[in-house]
Amino acid sequence: MSRKLRMGMIGGGIGSFIGDVHRKAAAIDGMIDLVCGAFSSNADKSIQSGKDLFLAENRCYASFKEMILTEKQLLEDVKMDFVAIVTPNHMHFEPAKLALENGFHVVCDKPMTLTIEQALELEEVQKKSGKLFALTHNYTGHPMVKQAKAMVANGDLGEIRKIQVQYLQGWLSTSVEKTGQKQASWRTDPKKSGIGGALGDIGTHAENLVEYITGLKIDEIAADLGVFGDDRVLDDDGNLLLRMENGAKGTMSISQIALGEENNLAIKVYGKKGSLEWHQENPNELITHWLEEPVKIFTPNGNDLYPEALNVSRIPAGHPEGYLEAFATIYKNFATHLMAVKNNEIIEKPDYPTIKDGVRGMQFIYAAVSSDKNNAAWTTL
Amino acid sequence: MSRKLRMGMIGGGIGSFIGDVHRKAAAIDGMIDLVCGAFSSNADKSIQSGKDLFLAENRCYASFKEMILTEKQLLEDVKMDFVAIVTPNHMHFEPAKLALENGFHVVCDKPMTLTIEQALELEEVQKKSGKLFALTHNYTGHPMVKQAKAMVANGDLGEIRKIQVQYLQGWLSTSVEKTGQKQASWRTDPKKSGIGGALGDIGTHAENLVEYITGLKIDEIAADLGVFGDDRVLDDDGNLLLRMENGAKGTMSISQIALGEENNLAIKVYGKKGSLEWHQENPNELITHWLEEPVKIFTPNGNDLYPEALNVSRIPAGHPEGYLEAFATIYKNFATHLMAVKNNEIIEKPDYPTIKDGVRGMQFIYAAVSSDKNNAAWTTL
Amino acid sequence: MSRKLRMGMIGGGIGSFIGDVHRKAAAIDGMIDLVCGAFSSNADKSIQSGKDLFLAENRCYASFKEMILTEKQLLEDVKMDFVAIVTPNHMHFEPAKLALENGFHVVCDKPMTLTIEQALELEEVQKKSGKLFALTHNYTGHPMVKQAKAMVANGDLGEIRKIQVQYLQGWLSTSVEKTGQKQASWRTDPKKSGIGGALGDIGTHAENLVEYITGLKIDEIAADLGVFGDDRVLDDDGNLLLRMENGAKGTMSISQIALGEENNLAIKVYGKKGSLEWHQENPNELITHWLEEPVKIFTPNGNDLYPEALNVSRIPAGHPEGYLEAFATIYKNFATHLMAVKNNEIIEKPDYPTIKDGVRGMQFIYAAVSSDKNNAAWTTL
Amino acid sequence: MSRKLRMGMIGGGIGSFIGDVHRKAAAIDGMIDLVCGAFSSNADKSIQSGKDLFLAENRCYASFKEMILTEKQLLEDVKMDFVAIVTPNHMHFEPAKLALENGFHVVCDKPMTLTIEQALELEEVQKKSGKLFALTHNYTGHPMVKQAKAMVANGDLGEIRKIQVQYLQGWLSTSVEKTGQKQASWRTDPKKSGIGGALGDIGTHAENLVEYITGLKIDEIAADLGVFGDDRVLDDDGNLLLRMENGAKGTMSISQIALGEENNLAIKVYGKKGSLEWHQENPNELITHWLEEPVKIFTPNGNDLYPEALNVSRIPAGHPEGYLEAFATIYKNFATHLMAVKNNEIIEKPDYPTIKDGVRGMQFIYAAVSSDKNNAAWTTL
Repeated sequence: MSRKLRMGMIGGGIGSFIGDVHRKAAAIDGMIDLVCGAFSSNADKSIQSGKDLFLAENRCYASFKEMILTEKQLLEDVKMDFVAIVTPNHMHFEPAKLALENGFHVVCDKPMTLTIEQALELEEVQKKSGKLFALTHNYTGHPMVKQAKAMVANGDLGEIRKIQVQYLQGWLSTSVEKTGQKQASWRTDPKKSGIGGALGDIGTHAENLVEYITGLKIDEIAADLGVFGDDRVLDDDGNLLLRMENGAKGTMSISQIALGEENNLAIKVYGKKGSLEWHQENPNELITHWLEEPVKIFTPNGNDLYPEALNVSRIPAGHPEGYLEAFATIYKNFATHLMAVKNNEIIEKPDYPTIKDGVRGMQFIYAAVSSDKNNAAWTTL
Repeated sequence: MSRKLRMGMIGGGIGSFIGDVHRKAAAIDGMIDLVCGAFSSNADKSIQSGKDLFLAENRCYASFKEMILTEKQLLEDVKMDFVAIVTPNHMHFEPAKLALENGFHVVCDKPMTLTIEQALELEEVQKKSGKLFALTHNYTGHPMVKQAKAMVANGDLGEIRKIQVQYLQGWLSTSVEKTGQKQASWRTDPKKSGIGGALGDIGTHAENLVEYITGLKIDEIAADLGVFGDDRVLDDDGNLLLRMENGAKGTMSISQIALGEENNLAIKVYGKKGSLEWHQENPNELITHWLEEPVKIFTPNGNDLYPEALNVSRIPAGHPEGYLEAFATIYKNFATHLMAVKNNEIIEKPDYPTIKDGVRGMQFIYAAVSSDKNNAAWTTL
Repeated sequence: MSRKLRMGMIGGGIGSFIGDVHRKAAAIDGMIDLVCGAFSSNADKSIQSGKDLFLAENRCYASFKEMILTEKQLLEDVKMDFVAIVTPNHMHFEPAKLALENGFHVVCDKPMTLTIEQALELEEVQKKSGKLFALTHNYTGHPMVKQAKAMVANGDLGEIRKIQVQYLQGWLSTSVEKTGQKQASWRTDPKKSGIGGALGDIGTHAENLVEYITGLKIDEIAADLGVFGDDRVLDDDGNLLLRMENGAKGTMSISQIALGEENNLAIKVYGKKGSLEWHQENPNELITHWLEEPVKIFTPNGNDLYPEALNVSRIPAGHPEGYLEAFATIYKNFATHLMAVKNNEIIEKPDYPTIKDGVRGMQFIYAAVSSDKNNAAWTTL
Repeated sequence: MSRKLRMGMIGGGIGSFIGDVHRKAAAIDGMIDLVCGAFSSNADKSIQSGKDLFLAENRCYASFKEMILTEKQLLEDVKMDFVAIVTPNHMHFEPAKLALENGFHVVCDKPMTLTIEQALELEEVQKKSGKLFALTHNYTGHPMVKQAKAMVANGDLGEIRKIQVQYLQGWLSTSVEKTGQKQASWRTDPKKSGIGGALGDIGTHAENLVEYITGLKIDEIAADLGVFGDDRVLDDDGNLLLRMENGAKGTMSISQIALGEENNLAIKVYGKKGSLEWHQENPNELITHWLEEPVKIFTPNGNDLYPEALNVSRIPAGHPEGYLEAFATIYKNFATHLMAVKNNEIIEKPDYPTIKDGVRGMQFIYAAVSSDKNNAAWTTL
């Protein structure tokens, strides 16, 4: 009997993008076994997906309800420990609530829910349940993002004055949602995506990254959203001004019609004493500038890093880690926390995004949409 | 007797930054001789500067007025053809007006004047004079900027949807203006700089570059300016939203307190069919993206360029041209035009920034300051 | 009962670098379960390592012999399918031979054996056994390396004329082997490493990459090896000239004393019609040059790729894959082949390095050492 | 009467590449006037070239002999001070000798002469003449090359162990010399180019750069030259091993058939304590690595530079200088020296390449050709 943690997956059937990412991310560090799943709202597809994933047939469920209620009955050392929810946005709330209420911990993709009301309700459910909840803001898992956060927290950069953040993609430059492309069709559908398009899909990552690295809250935003795709109703582009709680100012640029951009999340943070720059597409570099010293570039497992960065590097310097590894770090830190909980041990500061980040993300989406409706008027988060 | 054009310089004495730049830029292509100058409002300093520059002593003047009025009297093939005005902003209008009114052509640094009223008046003076006027928005002189403009003009990118432009410097991160640093002291002084700080010094370059490359006018802006330096009154930072005349949207980020940034002017333009990206600090690359093709990088004198780009490359591919060469291209195109005028020849479309660009820059500064005063309300240029 | 493949590991106990890499690489794609191991020649350490990896205690073995002979007795659907050998070089041959002779397939780290004689003998053993054998030349698993190979194979570059390859590290710049650092101590010890130091550890990767991408054999080499570390006996640096079978020429530079280099494997291949360039530290770019076209950069899952490249990308464009993913592709292709074999299916051209690559690598080491002894005389592989 | 230095040019008529480069480089810093020239062996073409350059007609000469002998007769403050020789290699020796013997200083393009015998003779002539002689190894004029040299000289890198240098171009990938392209035709013609093709044209730059930065002499080389172009007799490609006087080892790769390479001169130098890396195509960065510190990147006029680097930067940090500016620095340092000589002042250590560098370059070419003829046997310079 393996003593790894046991994961049940909701969503992520054949042909899914993010389900496969979650599975690989959960597998890398050898702490988690996928033991069951309800991979699709279509029962046949769900079961076929489970088979393709080498699962035991009796752990391939026809629905998430069936899975949660059935697994609940299994022996303590057989049943799943937690669910991973990897469905479109509108299918996060229900399974998350049901899982928490039935004693399962939850890993959930972002944005956390369809509506702000769901987010606040889920926060209450989670509190009551006492179960763990991780939200996969995966980019915070990169060693150089940890280094950036630690540098700001340690005051290396001095007071923060200016921020530039962007998350640019181009895959919705044409009307791919009309071609039957599944990823595009639900993301452009307000019933499945919520009131934000690019805002929810990538804007929340940008918002989360800013607050994670700087340790500062975004105070208010002015958002000018764009809807460039034919017949689209949700934003596929956004240009925002930021004001941070400490007086720092900045810009955020997000887009899914920035033709040619693949997954260009990047951030620059300027302080009174130093500044830093990080690019997701080349994640193994942290570029820093200083008042009196030359440009310094930090690399994973390279010289002069904070422990927070060293701790999350898996392989020696110069062996690039990528998207899956950063994603895996969310799972690893969650799994470490969960193992501790199961062993009645205490983890000082578990480092993964939680339900609070999920609520914050929904507040960001709502503030941006509201600002945009008011011709980019300043709006508090 | 050399048949080169003869230049007289106003400003740019010993220790000046931009005066030296103008002299080198004017010299590179062998079409212009510096023959006289009023290099400083201090007569002794002016004359010493002229000597250091190997000028004949009788062509080193105590003031720009003396120079213009004296040179006017010289023989046609001796006297200066044009003046180059390289003084702080508040000293552009007067000499430019006097030069034009006395029959001299003008090359002037940017922003064009101290106030919008001066700009409009100068435009009238210039029209009446029939003399040439070049404004040194030098970044438009780069081969890859020419290529970018030509690609947009030829429709390669399709309809433009999104723009990101930034001009980031960090040299005012500390209070250098209090140390007696001359460049900093006049740029932070509204009497010498005007109502815009970073806005005038670098923001106008960003504005000009956007309109030059895209061929689109900025319709309205929302500007959130920052004043971070101790005791400063002028903006040293700005975050702006852009709306273009065709419906494209974008952001502009400018700063002189972006610590560690040297001279980071960069632009991205996204269209329906392609996109492009150019960085001043690495100016010999134009990065482009396409719907169906891989990333393509164009280089000066490389493959597949438009004539507009080929025409301004001086040396073979891989031999980097830089800031001075782009600056020199403004002078070269101005000189070519002026030689043609002197020979009663006609140049089809002289390619250098003119007094119109100068007026436009002032409108941008005024709109940004006004928007900022109204809490970043949308303001038309 | 999982229908995944079952892996037993030899070596790779607590604190190992490459053992952990193999485990993560084998786990990512969800096709392989680690079911047993002999992780150390120290029995206690082996068993503790197995426990830390959540293995069943009865599958943690005291020695590789015990493991192979015991597992052989287990039921068909319980016993391991293959062994992964992740020990220092001198401990590859014995376990590989024993595994093959007892009916187990083998994945083995490189260089394949301690001596050329062992390599040739193992090749015979493997032939007789009919079992699969994969050598983890992991860098050939990168999507952009597959694209490079496909481009050459399809003639896009024309006849190859020139090659530059380098594999540069700096971690042996100081005498780390004297500090008890395990990785350094066995790699600098000829009893454990063989006659090549950097040659075996990284030179074989460079050699393999050249032949993999170009499809050309290295005909002869002239090698000038360096031994810079105090008291070292094995090469820690090498400078080589290459002559390829088709008349192409080139250089190879390898080093473990190239201070500051992390893991800088890079290759350039120049043909009559095009050229390409790939860098391991930024593996998600393939830079190409052409006679008449601009520079083109290919990216995983980007535009215009060959199927060979598309097939190995796991995640969308712009989501960087790294070292572990490329390593995983070796495991994935091996596992796909092995599953087919188990199902009596046929795989057309399994794409992973085999025992032939292992023999070739040993020939390279021996030719280089021999050339160096003869003052860099040309030596045939 | 201008007090600038007066330059006469030999070669560099209409359509020339390098003549134009020399003129622009000499002009940038405002210390030198072009006053006369013998721009072509064709008298008409020479005179027309002079006119196009705005020279007085009586200073446009039909031959270099006429120029040297006529100018010699002019008044001291009218006649040229020095000649710039920008002809093909076979036309360096004669005019240089004549100029020196008639009292003119000399700036000469590289390689210095057609043969080693000419080089040694010219060295004698120059010694006797007491006149200055500059050789335009222009790449040593870059601020970051000066910084590199200063860092090595100050021991920052410790003892040098390994060197990688390359100079790669692709413009001779096809038989352009058969199309009438002038640059290609003389460079591939041994009568005009000498015994080295790429060796002389670019290899000498690589050799010079290595010795300039490291302060070490190349002791011996093993050269495997390639002749890839159809019907070519001179090398268009070379792969070399290097052994430095201090025991350091390295590789040199040069090519003019490295398709797609534009002007890719690059060098890496590895020491016991640090290492550095510089790329001509992106010349405003010096990348350095250290035992205990992160990667540091130095930039012109950036933080923490040696005076040697600061002294040659013309414009503020972030305003890129390029090929012409580095070339101009050779002229500037030569002109500064010459002005001092004319004023009977003494310059401590004039920093520009001299006739010694020219002799060294010829020795390099001869050693490489000899080594290649002996199947890449080690050959002393």
